[in-house]
Amino acid sequence: MCKTAGCCQGCLHYAFDYETPKTLVIPNIRVGCVFRFTQLLVVLYVVGYVCVVQKAYQETDSLISTVTTKVKGFAFTNTSDIGPHLWDVAEYVIPPQGDNSFFVLTNMVVTPEQTESRCPELPNPLTTCVDDCDCIEGHSDPRGNGIQTGLCENYSTTVKTCEVLSWCPLEIDTKLPEPALLSAAENFTVLIKNSITYPKFNFQRRNILPHINSSYLKRCEFNRATDPDCPIFRLKHIVSEAGEEFQDMAVKGGILGILIDWSCDLDWWAKKCYPTYSFRRLDNKHPVNNVAPGYNFRFAKFYKKPDGEETRMLIKAYGIRFNVIVFGTCGVLAGRKIWNCTNHRKLGCSFVFSQFGACGC
Amino acid sequence: MCKTAGCCQGCLHYAFDYETPKTLVIPNIRVGCVFRFTQLLVVLYVVGYVCVVQKAYQETDSLISTVTTKVKGFAFTNTSDIGPHLWDVAEYVIPPQGDNSFFVLTNMVVTPEQTESRCPELPNPLTTCVDDCDCIEGHSDPRGNGIQTGLCENYSTTVKTCEVLSWCPLEIDTKLPEPALLSAAENFTVLIKNSITYPKFNFQRRNILPHINSSYLKRCEFNRATDPDCPIFRLKHIVSEAGEEFQDMAVKGGILGILIDWSCDLDWWAKKCYPTYSFRRLDNKHPVNNVAPGYNFRFAKFYKKPDGEETRMLIKAYGIRFNVIVFGTCGVLAGRKIWNCTNHRKLGCSFVFSQFGACGC
Amino acid sequence: MCKTAGCCQGCLHYAFDYETPKTLVIPNIRVGCVFRFTQLLVVLYVVGYVCVVQKAYQETDSLISTVTTKVKGFAFTNTSDIGPHLWDVAEYVIPPQGDNSFFVLTNMVVTPEQTESRCPELPNPLTTCVDDCDCIEGHSDPRGNGIQTGLCENYSTTVKTCEVLSWCPLEIDTKLPEPALLSAAENFTVLIKNSITYPKFNFQRRNILPHINSSYLKRCEFNRATDPDCPIFRLKHIVSEAGEEFQDMAVKGGILGILIDWSCDLDWWAKKCYPTYSFRRLDNKHPVNNVAPGYNFRFAKFYKKPDGEETRMLIKAYGIRFNVIVFGTCGVLAGRKIWNCTNHRKLGCSFVFSQFGACGC
Repeated sequence: MCKTAGCCQGCLHYAFDYETPKTLVIPNIRVGCVFRFTQLLVVLYVVGYVCVVQKAYQETDSLISTVTTKVKGFAFTNTSDIGPHLWDVAEYVIPPQGDNSFFVLTNMVVTPEQTESRCPELPNPLTTCVDDCDCIEGHSDPRGNGIQTGLCENYSTTVKTCEVLSWCPLEIDTKLPEPALLSAAENFTVLIKNSITYPKFNFQRRNILPHINSSYLKRCEFNRATDPDCPIFRLKHIVSEAGEEFQDMAVKGGILGILIDWSCDLDWWAKKCYPTYSFRRLDNKHPVNNVAPGYNFRFAKFYKKPDGEETRMLIKAYGIRFNVIVFGTCGVLAGRKIWNCTNHRKLGCSFVFSQFGACGC
Repeated sequence: MCKTAGCCQGCLHYAFDYETPKTLVIPNIRVGCVFRFTQLLVVLYVVGYVCVVQKAYQETDSLISTVTTKVKGFAFTNTSDIGPHLWDVAEYVIPPQGDNSFFVLTNMVVTPEQTESRCPELPNPLTTCVDDCDCIEGHSDPRGNGIQTGLCENYSTTVKTCEVLSWCPLEIDTKLPEPALLSAAENFTVLIKNSITYPKFNFQRRNILPHINSSYLKRCEFNRATDPDCPIFRLKHIVSEAGEEFQDMAVKGGILGILIDWSCDLDWWAKKCYPTYSFRRLDNKHPVNNVAPGYNFRFAKFYKKPDGEETRMLIKAYGIRFNVIVFGTCGVLAGRKIWNCTNHRKLGCSFVFSQFGACGC
Repeated sequence: MCKTAGCCQGCLHYAFDYETPKTLVIPNIRVGCVFRFTQLLVVLYVVGYVCVVQKAYQETDSLISTVTTKVKGFAFTNTSDIGPHLWDVAEYVIPPQGDNSFFVLTNMVVTPEQTESRCPELPNPLTTCVDDCDCIEGHSDPRGNGIQTGLCENYSTTVKTCEVLSWCPLEIDTKLPEPALLSAAENFTVLIKNSITYPKFNFQRRNILPHINSSYLKRCEFNRATDPDCPIFRLKHIVSEAGEEFQDMAVKGGILGILIDWSCDLDWWAKKCYPTYSFRRLDNKHPVNNVAPGYNFRFAKFYKKPDGEETRMLIKAYGIRFNVIVFGTCGVLAGRKIWNCTNHRKLGCSFVFSQFGACGC
């Protein structure tokens, strides 16, 4: 090229000439149909699956969530262990903070007036003994109740067991109250307040929707059909939505997930972003392989007697732990972030700004 | 082909002949410009957006984080309910563990010396009564304060309300101390220790950066301008960075997010990986639709009198819950994982190894 | 086209003619080899990296997890502060709920019989004084122990310090019991129950695998070699797997992560989905820049004396916080979701249904 004209012009031609492949047109309608059908499949995949189903053109963000919960309700019990007792929220919600995980006490085994002393172990194949030789001083079985003193004592008139150093009397948790002690807990209600943020898009929402007013909130109760937006849930309703029976679950306890799904499409043709609630039992209630089914834990209330001796009331608490699990991804047209809200604000471009209202700018 | 020469050679030709489309060169500079401009757009999109902005060539990982917090400070109060009292961390941080969520008590309504007994309900349209017929024995309204006994009693000289079985005297939480009881809490400080791991890349960091020494840590205080790396935060500063007023928030409580962003690019030309702090109020302070604004919960301290009777001090605690939210994704050139650290170590390839120092190998 | 024949037929031809580029075949085996080798690289990248390594054809989901933990074991201590004492789970696990984060007390500094009163500060350069002029009334240093009264008092026969209003006597936490008070905690065991759900695919699993029976669970103990599926862990074993020494860690406390990885491939040619456990120390034990190493917090037990005066026992608790961190992504052939389980059920298509068993449909 450089021979016929100047080298520069040749290079320019090389850079700016338009190259296109020569094509051969085959005027055969069958071959053409197959060809177009293949093209159609590709277009369908891209438009239908990649764009509509997968929304691959969107950039996504995970949410930051905060949850507060407040349980309300009362229960009155009258048992031989603790006498008549009125349970209010300060006692049956443990720990008292309404976090995204809260525990409602429904049943318990109380062992009052325990003191540090010695007493014979509960009888089982490992603890029964004939004489002191069967007991090892200082031996501590994690599955037992204390540290063996090496003595073999009468547990009852018929059974002898190794004596242990422990908090005595020992807890006997084999007889669980049935129906559950606080079976009235099914009528307790819980208010769940949840605020979410998609930090990448500076988008904020809460589960108390704008159209909900205070007077409605004072009397409403969640119901998928009639009150799907009310954030106040009756415990019995939660449990039954998860496909369980409250009174069954109350006896041995369990874990219930309250799932709040905030997945939404924030592009302007789809501004709506509402939470959807679902409920699911999270622990296993499978009858096989079920060590320690349900959910329970032990805690103690310590008292000092006037003479300075420490006694405690041991409580094995059974109940339902409610875990509020908030999840969701929010999709926005990829690239929108680059020329996004903040920039628009700076430009004072209120027209564009108004378009992005959904994005919380 | 198989006719003229051997079939094998024909197949070989078929497999190894180079095919290239015939092209037609159109020496028109306008068409060429449009053609090259289109190509430029594609290159810009791929290099500029896909590579530089989106870093699509990178593999990403989410982090595992652990947070411990320790609040320090004192407050002295003198109220009629509890008398002169010195508040230290063992009392105003509830629960006491410095987890990634900690609560600092700032205000409270105390109802001392409650016992299980009977007393008239607090007056409201649902509880006021004229005679016993207005009260239903055994009725328990979750929004009330106890279980009705069926009697109608004098609440004051002018109002009669239904008597309830409850912890009496009932809590009256309408008069909240203002300014907040522990308004001195604004000067409390919190040390936040945060260690993160990107498990896929075996990369570990903590928010106490290598260049920070112990003596600096003993006197420093976070300030975005002067001390951006100090992990000790004054509560007032956190709240004001979130755009709120501490004394306002202290009265009714609230939830504050301390966001630590560890997003970083671990490729070797970008080894730096520092945390950036931001603060945000997470609960809603919107004046409309605001049931139970702020953040509070009730708990009780139980005491046994010498005669064995149980009394309790009920505390409705208002305060600020600080949620430390750690997030971030870490990007590494995709595929680097395959020939990564572990393999290099095995090969003893210390040169390549040194290049990956940022990745914590 | 419209001139020679009907316009419609022309359009039809335009739409259904098959176009293919004319190609030029260069029968040069060297060029051909380079060409085929390049093609091979592309195919290798797509099949080997994108499909096999990255599994880009799969759709992934993050999990929802629930964890309960139950610690068992006893420890007997005999110290001058608190006398002989038997520690059981109700005391050394704080808070008592077996959540995904639990704390086991291993060491402590006890300050019994504190009352609100005045006492001289612990001596340090900021608190020592010569006379009252060195002390400012009302001054409260967050790093000190109380609010200064303005007096300078004898701390010992040789040192004078500013008097503070505080809970006296002040805690002296410089002498930490070594070996740790509850060094026996190394033999405690913890049962971890973990259920997971991949909500997108409705896939549920738990860490007590189907082949594990109750009697095995009563005696087993996790061991990577012999009992890799047993969900009962000895604390000492966890700590040593994380590369630490239990007795060292017990003195000042620390944070240990128990990582459960549920990553799995749910496509039908890879149905297995088991948890894998790993252990990692999460806090920093770096000797440099280490403010407040380990993990501790303060809490108090409040008592009322018969005369109504409130005393407290302040406990600075050191121990190991175990964080159970559950993670994983589950991959399923993209698009499978569209014609997934629910639809199949409706169609009653039991054959296809059986194929998706792994997906928990």
